[in-house]
Amino acid sequence: MDTRPEKAPSAIIDEALRKAMSAGWEVRGTTSPNPPVGAVIVSTSGEIVGTGATQPVGGAHAEVQALADAAGNTEGATAVVTLEPCNHTGRTGPCTSALIEAGIKEVFYLHSDPNPDAAGGAEELREAGISVSQLHTPQGEPDALLPWLKSVQLGRPHVTLKFAQTIDGFTAASDGTSQWITGDIARNHVHEDREHRDAIIVGTGTALTDNPSLTARNSDGTQRENQPRRVVIGRRSLADVGENASNLNSLGFEQYANIDVAMEELFASGARDVLVEGGSGLASGFMNAGLVDWVQVYQAPILLGEGISVLAHPLANTLKDAVRFSRGQVIALGDDLLINYVKTPDSS
Amino acid sequence: MDTRPEKAPSAIIDEALRKAMSAGWEVRGTTSPNPPVGAVIVSTSGEIVGTGATQPVGGAHAEVQALADAAGNTEGATAVVTLEPCNHTGRTGPCTSALIEAGIKEVFYLHSDPNPDAAGGAEELREAGISVSQLHTPQGEPDALLPWLKSVQLGRPHVTLKFAQTIDGFTAASDGTSQWITGDIARNHVHEDREHRDAIIVGTGTALTDNPSLTARNSDGTQRENQPRRVVIGRRSLADVGENASNLNSLGFEQYANIDVAMEELFASGARDVLVEGGSGLASGFMNAGLVDWVQVYQAPILLGEGISVLAHPLANTLKDAVRFSRGQVIALGDDLLINYVKTPDSS
Repeated sequence: MDTRPEKAPSAIIDEALRKAMSAGWEVRGTTSPNPPVGAVIVSTSGEIVGTGATQPVGGAHAEVQALADAAGNTEGATAVVTLEPCNHTGRTGPCTSALIEAGIKEVFYLHSDPNPDAAGGAEELREAGISVSQLHTPQGEPDALLPWLKSVQLGRPHVTLKFAQTIDGFTAASDGTSQWITGDIARNHVHEDREHRDAIIVGTGTALTDNPSLTARNSDGTQRENQPRRVVIGRRSLADVGENASNLNSLGFEQYANIDVAMEELFASGARDVLVEGGSGLASGFMNAGLVDWVQVYQAPILLGEGISVLAHPLANTLKDAVRFSRGQVIALGDDLLINYVKTPDSS
Repeated sequence: MDTRPEKAPSAIIDEALRKAMSAGWEVRGTTSPNPPVGAVIVSTSGEIVGTGATQPVGGAHAEVQALADAAGNTEGATAVVTLEPCNHTGRTGPCTSALIEAGIKEVFYLHSDPNPDAAGGAEELREAGISVSQLHTPQGEPDALLPWLKSVQLGRPHVTLKFAQTIDGFTAASDGTSQWITGDIARNHVHEDREHRDAIIVGTGTALTDNPSLTARNSDGTQRENQPRRVVIGRRSLADVGENASNLNSLGFEQYANIDVAMEELFASGARDVLVEGGSGLASGFMNAGLVDWVQVYQAPILLGEGISVLAHPLANTLKDAVRFSRGQVIALGDDLLINYVKTPDSS
């Protein structure tokens, strides 16, 4: 006798998946080295009865959170998760066991677990008599797991290169002025974005010239709840030159001699999703090393005609050798635009 | 006794206005120095019974076209026009007379006529007992009259500066290669756009280096129906250097010694909406002279790190002096973007 509940209509599963993705999206930047997973429990009557997301390291995984949120409504229910439930006992027990013990009869997941230690969850669930299916990414829903998945695949943090520029591609005027190219709405967006990153990275030149804080702030200047690691790359000491980098000196920061060391140390210490904010020398270093996965351009509606280019060094001197991206989402931020680009996989 | 028909519901007027705007949009580039106007006739029963647009110089105006299209259905009908009906006998009779004679009882128009010779149409219609109202621009509907209106106001052609660039603001690589920065869809869009301009303008440098045709072509290379005037600005002769500008030499072109002369001569000879395609020297010349009304950026998803900038000369050496635009429509063209910018009126 088939004891599985009648399959929930696909509209409910789609709604549950979007809700799970949204829950995962909210916890980006707080879960590394664990992935920002979201999970939703759908009752036998087709209602969403529980939602959860990965907690900071040592805390519960998304499935366990969602099961707890669903209280006594899990017997015979369906779980919708953004990542294949883990089959691994680490700081917490395997999520597969939690789902089985809760009486879940059907599991839908979005991404397979790329981690060999944690994979095999779908198989384990099937052996326990649970129906398991993989879902497709719903259109227009931002996917918090993409950087984490890429990072696990590459064995280094996923790198987003971010810059603010004029229409004609300058990050600063020729006299060095760069505050503020973009308007309030775009600057707020940058701070909201920082809050969801594991680390913000600048070069020593920018640290000394701009005296940045690299904190995630609200528009009233107060600190946001989650703060990324503050990372400086380069050999120059920020202490030697006194007050030039006073903000970083008082807040504290990590410094690495070069990009390779930084990538290795950041990954080893749990960073999976990092944001490189410049300057143009460091941006060029990351580009030339082939380490830029996403580019995030805040483009202001102004022309300068001359100034400091986004990249300090050539990538290609002929058009066919230019580095190519795919266009991602374009977001209007007041009169500025945020244009997202994703590195095109090498044709080789 | 009020003999006017019952007022057509506003939804019908909105639909008629959009249809009139669309008709005007189609004839851009073929009507100068007359404006690309569209007109629609709505019958007493609220149906669209006629549509028209300005014909090439010497041909009928939009209202007359629409009245003819409506055949015998004009008695008591409503006319919706994108520009205040002209009150002027030029090559054709005044449109006001045509509307009155056709028995039109109500007229809606979008823009007032800025031309002192042709204005007064609304007043003339009211004196004939016709109800006349001005409408607002419906959201999301492209307005073919904007360049013409600006041109009449300024007494010079409306100038759109167009360029294709990399993410980092280069129109060519450092070795000079620039074909093709953007993809097929964007290039097709450029040709469609050319078809609707009065003139395409390049500098002598571009004419000699790129050997452009400046024609509006279909993707199979055949000529589009309407061809803009081909204009070269600069003192160098294109003939002296033999075959370098062979396409323009065989197709024919107009040459003006400098930007001021070109603007004056083009306006005097009827051009109202012109497209400046480069190179960076000419683009800088137009920018520095404050003659750029719109900027049209075709942005490809590639990075070069170095190359030839969009503008050859500085506009500002400090950020606060940058030239500011408002962002217009953003259009995805495959993996490229077309970003439209409109010059912000000077604060002075």
